[in-house]
Formats: sequence, C-alpha cells, structure tokens
Amino acid sequence: MKAPVYLDHAASTQMLPEAVEAMTAVFAQPGNASSLHGSGRTARRRLEESREAIAAAVGARPSEVVFTGGGTESDNLAVKGIFWARRNADPRRRRIITSAIEHHAVLDPAQWLADEADAELVLLPVDADGVISPADLRAELEAHADETALISIMWANNEVGTIQPITEIAALGSEFGIPVHSDAIQAVGHLPVDFAASGLSALSLTAHKFGGPQGVGALLLGRDVGCVPLLHGGGHERDVRSGTQDVAGAAGMAAALSWCVENLEANTAHVRALQTRLTEVLLGVDGAVRNGADGDGRLPGNVHVSFAGCEGDSLLMLLDAKGVECSTGSACTAGVAQASHVLLAMGLDMADARSSLRFSLGHTTTDADIDAVAAVIDEVVDRARAAGLVSAPGGRIT
Amino acid sequence: MKAPVYLDHAASTQMLPEAVEAMTAVFAQPGNASSLHGSGRTARRRLEESREAIAAAVGARPSEVVFTGGGTESDNLAVKGIFWARRNADPRRRRIITSAIEHHAVLDPAQWLADEADAELVLLPVDADGVISPADLRAELEAHADETALISIMWANNEVGTIQPITEIAALGSEFGIPVHSDAIQAVGHLPVDFAASGLSALSLTAHKFGGPQGVGALLLGRDVGCVPLLHGGGHERDVRSGTQDVAGAAGMAAALSWCVENLEANTAHVRALQTRLTEVLLGVDGAVRNGADGDGRLPGNVHVSFAGCEGDSLLMLLDAKGVECSTGSACTAGVAQASHVLLAMGLDMADARSSLRFSLGHTTTDADIDAVAAVIDEVVDRARAAGLVSAPGGRIT
Repeated sequence: MKAPVYLDHAASTQMLPEAVEAMTAVFAQPGNASSLHGSGRTARRRLEESREAIAAAVGARPSEVVFTGGGTESDNLAVKGIFWARRNADPRRRRIITSAIEHHAVLDPAQWLADEADAELVLLPVDADGVISPADLRAELEAHADETALISIMWANNEVGTIQPITEIAALGSEFGIPVHSDAIQAVGHLPVDFAASGLSALSLTAHKFGGPQGVGALLLGRDVGCVPLLHGGGHERDVRSGTQDVAGAAGMAAALSWCVENLEANTAHVRALQTRLTEVLLGVDGAVRNGADGDGRLPGNVHVSFAGCEGDSLLMLLDAKGVECSTGSACTAGVAQASHVLLAMGLDMADARSSLRFSLGHTTTDADIDAVAAVIDEVVDRARAAGLVSAPGGRIT
Repeated sequence: MKAPVYLDHAASTQMLPEAVEAMTAVFAQPGNASSLHGSGRTARRRLEESREAIAAAVGARPSEVVFTGGGTESDNLAVKGIFWARRNADPRRRRIITSAIEHHAVLDPAQWLADEADAELVLLPVDADGVISPADLRAELEAHADETALISIMWANNEVGTIQPITEIAALGSEFGIPVHSDAIQAVGHLPVDFAASGLSALSLTAHKFGGPQGVGALLLGRDVGCVPLLHGGGHERDVRSGTQDVAGAAGMAAALSWCVENLEANTAHVRALQTRLTEVLLGVDGAVRNGADGDGRLPGNVHVSFAGCEGDSLLMLLDAKGVECSTGSACTAGVAQASHVLLAMGLDMADARSSLRFSLGHTTTDADIDAVAAVIDEVVDRARAAGLVSAPGGRIT
C-alpha cells in the first residue's frame, strides 16, 4: 500500500530519528532520576542534560524548564497554577485575560476557573487575520490591572497559523506587573523562540509537534513566578510538578528540539517554499479563500483555506480516500461537527467556517506531496460541493 | 565496567523488550489518535487495542481505562477529581479517609484539599506490620459516612511491601455508599489484580513499575464514578483527562502489562524464592530486623530491613560503591534525611526508621545478585555502624 501524503504535521509530526535514538538509549537502562545510586544518578544526568539542551534551544535557563506530560498539562498548569498563586496573594485578582482564539487547553481551564473558582474571564477579540491587538490589551489593563491574575495569549494559532505580537503583549504585562503565559505549542521548533528575550513569565511547549514523542512537554516558568502545582506528591520539578520524570521522553524531546533549532533556517526555507506552492494550488480552486495572515505573519507550515459550499469533513474524507491526510479547523467529537471558534472569532460566517481545511507541512514534506494535492483537489471540491453542506449547523453528520 | 546489581525495581524497573518493540513500531508512523484520516485512525486503533489489553490484564472494561501521564497524575486525579465531584453534589461531603502510610502522591493532594478546599483529612492508623484495620474504617464510616467524600487506600505499600485487605475495604465503601480508590502502583503486574472483583471505584497504575515506559499510567475509573478533570481541553479520555494521547506509551504499557500477567505465576515463584533468600541473608546480619509482613502478606519483590545503629543513607552509599543498588525507605530531598512516615506510622522509633533499606527485586534478578549482596553486607553494615548516625534527626547529612 502506498504511504499516505501526510499533511497534518500540526496535529502530530513524524518522529525524528535523533529522538527515537535518544529514547532507545535510555530504554536500555533502568533508573529513576530520584534514586541516589549510580543508575539513578545516570538517569538524573540524562534528565538534566535534556533540560539544558531544551533551555539552550529556547533561550531559557535550565531551572526554568519544568517537564510535564504534554502541552495540555503545561497550559493547565500555567493557567490554573498562576491564577491560584496570584489570587491567594491578593483575592482581588480574579481576572484572566486571554483571547477568543486560544486552544481549548487554555480556554477550558480558564472557563473551569470561572465556573468553580470565581475567576472572571476576559476574551480579547481578533481581527480578520486572527491577530490580537495590543491596544485592546492596554485598554483592558488600564481599566483592570489591579484585578488581573494573569494574561495567556498563544504565540501562534494552531488552526490558521497566525503569529501574535507576543513581545508587545509580554511588554504590556511587564508594564502593568501582570505575568504573561504563552501557549507556544505550534511555534517552538518552527519559529525562533527566545524565552528570555520575549519577556514572558511562562511558555508551554510539547514534543510531538516538533519531532519528539507524544506524552511529554514542558512549561518554561520564570524563577520568580508563583505557580500552584496541579500534581502534588514527591516534589519533583521545583515542587511545581510532582511525578517520576520521564527520562526517555525528556531525552527524545531534547534531541528533536535541538535538531529543529540547529536546522531552523534550512527547514523554514524548505517549508515556506512548499507553503507558497500549496497555497497557490489551493487558491486556484474556484471559490477558495485563504484564512489567516499572509507570508511571515503565519507559521511556515500552515495553509488554511475555505472552499465555499463544501463541508470541511466531507473534503477531509474525500481527500483521505485519495491518500491525502489533512484536518478541518473544527473540533469534531463523536460525529458532531461544530464550526471552529477561531474562524468565527475572525468573522467568518458559519458556512464558511465549516467549509475549511488545514494543511500543515513538516520537514519531511516534498514537492511530490504538493503534486498529489494538486492532482485531486478540483475533483474533491466538486464532489464535496455536489454533496453540499450535508448537516445543519451543530447537527449530526449523516 | 561491571553492570551494577540493580535491586531497586520498585523505584523503576528494567523495560521489557516487548514494551520497547511495541513503542518502536508506533514511533515509525506519525499520527494523532484524534485525527480523522487514515494515519489518525491507525493511531486510534493502536490506542484502543492497548486500552483493551490493559483492561483484560486487570479485570476492567476498556471504557474504564483512563490514560494519564503516570502514577502521580492518576492518584491526584482520583483524589481531587472524586472529592470535587462528591462535594459538588453534596457540600457536606468534606472528609477524605486515607491511611498514614499512603504514598505522597495520595497524601499530598489530600493535604492540599484540606488546606485549600476545606477538606477534612482522616488518616487511618496501621499495625506494626503496616496493615490497615477494616474495623477502624467501619467505625469511621459508622460515625461519618454522610460527610465522607471518598476513601483512598493503597493496594500494597511502596516502602515495606505490605498488602492491604483491599476487597474488605472496598466492600465497606460499597456498604456505606462511598467510592473507594486504591493506589495499586506497586501491585499491578506483581500481584493478581481484578478491578471488577475488587469492588473498587478507581485504581491507579503506572507503567514503569512493571516493565513499561516512564511517563505513562492509567486510572481505572468505574463508569458511574463522578470525577472532575485535572486537565481540561480537547475532551480526550471520556472528558476526564484532556491531552493528546501518548499512543507509543500506551502500547508500551499494554505490552509490558500483558507480559507480566501472562507470566505472573512463574515470575512470582522466581521472585519469591529470591526474596526468601535475600531476607535470610540480611537477617543473618547482627542486629538486623525485618519491617513489614511475612510471606504472602507482602509484595513478592520487597525486602525491607532495619540495621540498628546505622544511617540508611550511609548504607545505601556504601552498597552503591560496591555495585549494589537499593534505596532507603526515606524521602531524601536535597541532602536532608527524614525518617519515613510509613515506618513511623508502624511504630518504629526515629533511629530505627532511619536505619533501614529497601531492596526490591524483579524478573531480571538472579541468584548471583543475592550472592553479591551476601558478599558485602557484613562489611558495609560494620562500616556504617562505625560511622554511626551522622546527622541529627531531620538535620543535614554531613
């Protein structure tokens, strides 16, 4: 069977051989990084070398790297942990400022704090490209800085790839004395990320988005940023995240990130060229419209297009049948199609929002992959259009 | 360099080749188990096959297996999640009944709920062997069942290996209508564990204690047991634990657990024989005393002995220098030696508690490993005794 054309790297990318090799080396030896004997010290050394490599790759100090079980945990830890720490220090600080286009791993913990812990959720709007306005944030802070616990704004959007003005946002946080967290899960490994230079207080990353394993991530957390743990126990990771550390996972993440950062320039040039070509191919389809920013304003690997009159899930399945794998912008659970909250926040109407596809490219993507899309996209869109929007908004797909 | 004699399997055991092989197969293919295309469906199938294998190995239904990032997360999710769900349903339910010898991954979240969420912590005592009395639990429930949120009692103790009367405890929970969670992290893979037959509502397990990878675990959670998530986001894992699933980790855990359960009888016979021999060797040392239960009352791989007049950390380091790796019962952070809360709860005095070592055996342990301990233990104890208890209780080791 022919291998599929995998254009869903933003969901989970191919593991790099360097990461697999690093993990396999750790698998060969037992050891808990908290054990005091030789095997334990070897595990600890590997863990700390991984921490140092990750820190070096993202401009952080090793002590600022807190290992977690993945991006969702990093985001939950930042949002809940910093909220609790700030509100415990000053009960007036109930506001969480975030944006309408965040990932659910930020929005949902923030909403949970609103429901259960009396937080007040402030969602900044975005423009038609999906960009947050620092002026909106300034206005909010001028009115309510004293009541604000934290700001959480993503570095780059996972659906449409739009890059946010994160250093400006972090600078506003500093000006008003509010810690700023950024979900940089789509950015790390794909854009230059320098934690120290960014001015952020906290930053989430996860390995499987840049060629490392699933199930391991990190929260970069400034030394002076208070953060209540989500996981209590043995006091690992600065007492912010208890649990036996995943030494192999950390080694795999470090190997993958080091490779990405060392090869960033070449990878970016390679992926940007393919992005340009794929965008041209897709916008050549009758009625196709690009979503999100142009050129340098978006992630190198992200192409996001609406096909008027189509159902995104139908397009996805028809492409899949032709051996091309991509994703819709929508969260689809148990057969219920919902329009993307990101696209709606950018001003798309329900039908356009539900007619979109995300193609995400990686370092393994080739010109032949783009050729494969070009060869089938017209037929696929025609068929999807003939089928029409088969389900009512919010309704079950038939 | 000669490989060390690794007798610290309870801290983290050697990965089984079956687990490494299962993970390597997953590493070769990209895919997010939530993606709808072919690669996503392949990842999903692997994840669900792993879930089914784990369920079959521990007498659970596949839908009762919630994947987590490890044992500490499983314990935190059970304790906090069930507490919140029960108290939200009935604000009188503030009591958490647990025991004095639980792992910190249970005690610390329970204490945090007491500090931050007005929980009331009830610590059941243990006898000299470290066994909880069902009569104590019954008395507590007769007085306070209406105010009780949950019961959390470990299946087998991580330090001294004592097995608890868990089916009696679960039956008491049922009788009084209180959900019972058990931290079975040291038991799964080493003792017969049948979730359905146990009568428990929830059970924690983690892969690296039975030959799977670090950084992946599960909470078995009855379908009708309310549990508020710790990690909010994409709604994975029955909406109880959001986050991209670690497909390779799940496959590695499933492969390891299946192997352990298929070979349980032979492994147990092998490890019990070595346990008996090592116990004899150690109790042959002048002034040595066994801690915990005898024979079938303790985990097959656990040997725990106090050496009067010694400092456990000194023993550990002297043994390590001779190539024998074990652990103290104590939690030692940043050079501060503390007596084990487990041993103190069993009635040991501070000096005896601090003079103990845990040796934990696994399927790779051989007679030659026991010979190696026998060859050095007298000299090591003599030297440790000559050095004496070098630090004051709670003080810094010099």
